[in-house]
Amino acid sequence: SSGRVVLVGAGPGDPELLTLKGLRMLAGADVILFDDLVPASVLDFARREAQRINVGKRGYAPSVDQGEISALLVKLAQEGKNVVRLKGGDPMIFGRANEEIAAMREAGLDVEIVPGVTAALAGAAALGVSLTNRETARRVQFVTAHSKDGALPQDFDWAALADSRATTAVYMGNRTLPELARKLIESGADPATPAFLIERASTPDERIVAGTLADLPEKVAGQEVEGPALLLIGASLRP
Amino acid sequence: SSGRVVLVGAGPGDPELLTLKGLRMLAGADVILFDDLVPASVLDFARREAQRINVGKRGYAPSVDQGEISALLVKLAQEGKNVVRLKGGDPMIFGRANEEIAAMREAGLDVEIVPGVTAALAGAAALGVSLTNRETARRVQFVTAHSKDGALPQDFDWAALADSRATTAVYMGNRTLPELARKLIESGADPATPAFLIERASTPDERIVAGTLADLPEKVAGQEVEGPALLLIGASLRP
Repeated sequence: SSGRVVLVGAGPGDPELLTLKGLRMLAGADVILFDDLVPASVLDFARREAQRINVGKRGYAPSVDQGEISALLVKLAQEGKNVVRLKGGDPMIFGRANEEIAAMREAGLDVEIVPGVTAALAGAAALGVSLTNRETARRVQFVTAHSKDGALPQDFDWAALADSRATTAVYMGNRTLPELARKLIESGADPATPAFLIERASTPDERIVAGTLADLPEKVAGQEVEGPALLLIGASLRP
Repeated sequence: SSGRVVLVGAGPGDPELLTLKGLRMLAGADVILFDDLVPASVLDFARREAQRINVGKRGYAPSVDQGEISALLVKLAQEGKNVVRLKGGDPMIFGRANEEIAAMREAGLDVEIVPGVTAALAGAAALGVSLTNRETARRVQFVTAHSKDGALPQDFDWAALADSRATTAVYMGNRTLPELARKLIESGADPATPAFLIERASTPDERIVAGTLADLPEKVAGQEVEGPALLLIGASLRP
């Protein structure tokens, strides 16, 4: 009899931001495949005898080939294992879930998805400012600033990103911040727009660098940013 | 001595999608103020003797005045109560958290925020399709289709919403769907863009109406939609 694969969102960092359902799935797993972005302490919720496999995929820059991960998920499920595929944040936001889901379906296996708290929400909680605001920020957008080759994607709708009535969360945006900020300003964004880099949001090591589109790159350049980092940009974020 | 107020995201519907931290905060609350959008069974995690106050705010259409809610939060905290302000989904997405946070800060009180799983993530899990996709959907945006007076906001960046390389989640979009779909198509969106209405995502009563920008309004018009409903629109959502 076949096992199953459950894609579980591990949340943004604080292990207490795992959902109750995620906890239940972890506790029932025979095997857990996890990424580098998964908080290590979330794995402590699994049974001691569960097999833990680090597939080391860091966002869009895989260290284990995506095809290998998908094939492993299928193989384990076909062996009858209860498999949890644990992803940082939410599986359906910048998690490359489609490739794994497609592989499971092609093999005739069901996949269940357990959503999680995505990084932008933990970033907003860290700032203490809502990502939306009545009248002034009716739209919130999440982008990744990290394409396949690690560079800033060039094919964005730049006007959409520069719109002063939207709040923007940039995932994996630390390295390309100087270019991103310059392009946003060139596209019409106010250089004085509040901008924040939030490192390790929701953890005891959480750190916020506050600035504007104009000066955040310089402020961040002087700091070591080692943990997962998120950018939040938007006129309505002024605390 | 003062109490405290914690804004807690109740998640999208399934009580098991509450976070472990949300559960801990609920269990320690003397008073809970909650909205209509909060899943009733989430309240069962609170102590039996905790006071439960339904402030009946349904998204952007308050039945209790927002100022009264803020004043009540301040009063209860000043009385030394541990107050949980429970909001559907995540507090920082279309939750009008800024007004309550500002009232607390003006009164010299701290506010803690516990993020939650926002509806769009549960909608993606229901569809089994990622909101982002490498190369083809690097941007995901959330909007509310419900302004102060209940009408569709007119001041959107329509080009940003019609962009075929983005995925759009529309909160409270059921009533204004026909006008929204028409405007998106007028703004350049492909009428064949996959579009879904997801009602009561993550609950046993979850229901999906699948269509396109062109035909979803008609498909939805023939159905009773009573629970919280979310729209998901995007070229990369094709299952």
